[in-house]
Amino acid sequence: MRQEPQRERILTGDRVTGKLHLGHYVGSLKKRVKLQEEYDPYFILADVQALTTHFEQPELVRKHLREVALDYLAAGIDPDRSTIFIQSLVPEIAELTVYYSMFVTVNTLRHNPTVKSEAADRGYDDLYYGFLGYPVSQAADITFCKATLVPVGEDQIPHIEQTRKIVRRFNELYGAVFEEPRALVGEVPRLIGLDGKGKMSKSLGNAISLDSSKSEVEAKLKKAVTDPARVYKSDPGHPDICPVFAYHQAFMPEESEDIREQCTQAKIGCAECKLRIARRINDVLEPMRERRAYYEARPKRVEEILQSGTEQARHIARETMLEVREAMNINYFAER
Amino acid sequence: MRQEPQRERILTGDRVTGKLHLGHYVGSLKKRVKLQEEYDPYFILADVQALTTHFEQPELVRKHLREVALDYLAAGIDPDRSTIFIQSLVPEIAELTVYYSMFVTVNTLRHNPTVKSEAADRGYDDLYYGFLGYPVSQAADITFCKATLVPVGEDQIPHIEQTRKIVRRFNELYGAVFEEPRALVGEVPRLIGLDGKGKMSKSLGNAISLDSSKSEVEAKLKKAVTDPARVYKSDPGHPDICPVFAYHQAFMPEESEDIREQCTQAKIGCAECKLRIARRINDVLEPMRERRAYYEARPKRVEEILQSGTEQARHIARETMLEVREAMNINYFAER
Ligand code: SF4
Ligand code: SF4
Repeated sequence: MRQEPQRERILTGDRVTGKLHLGHYVGSLKKRVKLQEEYDPYFILADVQALTTHFEQPELVRKHLREVALDYLAAGIDPDRSTIFIQSLVPEIAELTVYYSMFVTVNTLRHNPTVKSEAADRGYDDLYYGFLGYPVSQAADITFCKATLVPVGEDQIPHIEQTRKIVRRFNELYGAVFEEPRALVGEVPRLIGLDGKGKMSKSLGNAISLDSSKSEVEAKLKKAVTDPARVYKSDPGHPDICPVFAYHQAFMPEESEDIREQCTQAKIGCAECKLRIARRINDVLEPMRERRAYYEARPKRVEEILQSGTEQARHIARETMLEVREAMNINYFAER
Repeated sequence: MRQEPQRERILTGDRVTGKLHLGHYVGSLKKRVKLQEEYDPYFILADVQALTTHFEQPELVRKHLREVALDYLAAGIDPDRSTIFIQSLVPEIAELTVYYSMFVTVNTLRHNPTVKSEAADRGYDDLYYGFLGYPVSQAADITFCKATLVPVGEDQIPHIEQTRKIVRRFNELYGAVFEEPRALVGEVPRLIGLDGKGKMSKSLGNAISLDSSKSEVEAKLKKAVTDPARVYKSDPGHPDICPVFAYHQAFMPEESEDIREQCTQAKIGCAECKLRIARRINDVLEPMRERRAYYEARPKRVEEILQSGTEQARHIARETMLEVREAMNINYFAER
């Protein structure tokens, strides 16, 4: 068990609903790899929360869980500096969820942004009870390991507020067990998809997954939508509406102003422009491919990483629950 | 660990919100003592569910838990034939609650009778999330130990229906892990209180608790409301509106028709009538007092009963969760 009490603990992770793609990398994964240097990150593979919306296909959840774990390791998450663990194997998270459920009203949850947007899609009454409680289980995810920092995008700051409220309420009722977690703002909005229509997303088929081969990256970019007004190389382009330009900004920001100029002045063709960014993306993915190949050849090592990460998480979880039980005065046999 | 696979398992118990009284005895406890002869009863001391409404006074929950446990033992629940366990110490119940949360809609819960009546009192939006989920956690209570029978009153049959629905849904999705529990109808509506105004209830101060002394029982009955129209012994009484008569019916049904006649014919005075039933109630409580004295003198034995009951419950709970995880395909490290 690692012992680094100095580093501040971070909780982050993903619902395991599919392989990660470039959008994840740019949006969060790249930053997470950096965070390991300064912090003590806990990465939750949220399979229970994935079941919330995928409960009819549990076989997929299992598959996705392995994929995301491999994506993490390939991206450079270092199991010696980070803890990767499986949500469903930490029952203390379920226990905390049940306790926290007792001091959050239905009304509060209805006004949570995530719940609201799901409710807008499927109607409030048809929400699953578990989904309505998403903010409650998020609070349990963050607090079971006493994480004090949660990396988020600007727009997600309100999400952390719900956890802070739950923590305040708990501390008011039972004494100061938890510290209110803070948002670590820095994640960026997700990347636009290859079709230029919306965010990159596996289910929309407009994504480049992190396990793409060199030629897959090139082929996908070749087919990417560009400025539709630009038919010939001699037509000046409009980079701000071109997804390929968005990739330039994300992956080679230092040269993106050059590209903008060359595009608007019709000095570069789309084929050439795409080839350049494909090369850059492949440069980024290349070390991931190496690490992925390493771990793919060693499934036992991956299993061991998940197991020892989960054990580490449970170790912390059990300690937290002892404190919680003591604070709540339900540590019935503690004197023994 | 006891091994009696032949006897059918029953789940019953109480939210630990206060000492039990004659109403509990007549309504359920008396029957439960009988059930031990034929069944394998699991008695849940529902502290988590008590916290749902008492989360601001956890110190009371702890106190009430010991009181209810003593009431059970005093009433004749036999720890060698029954399992008495503490809900919060079986985290598998919380885990199942979280899983079941994923396939019950908010709408279904809103129409549950218990939730509805609470919502009528405090408004739907102000319900606590945990309370809205009461039927979900009830399903977890019943199924974690694979109980197939749940003792209920006639009016509570719909409650069991929710658990049956959850079980059906689970089995449909993941395979036949659980048997649908059945209602064991037989519990009777609670006894009327000493004030004749409503059901006997500790909080209304109209109850005779099971730990009452002989003189307390007599004194309480002396002050009990009777037929208000009966001022003198010579006035004919109306037993059907007299709570004392209700006690005759409950505790000495074989003689109650005699009492009715004597009362309506003004052949018995209220003082005499009360004394008779006080004697009978004391006859019922006397063996409880003896058992209570035994256990009160042996707090370690009580602790041990709760601990070994809880261990037995966890043992079953862990087995159930192995099956649940396997069925849901989230038994990630099971091959080891
Ligand atoms: S040159 Fe590049 S940025 Fe400009 S339209 Fe073509 S692909 Fe887009
Ligand atoms: S005699 Fe008994 S039953 Fe009749 S009014 Fe008095 S207390 Fe009630």
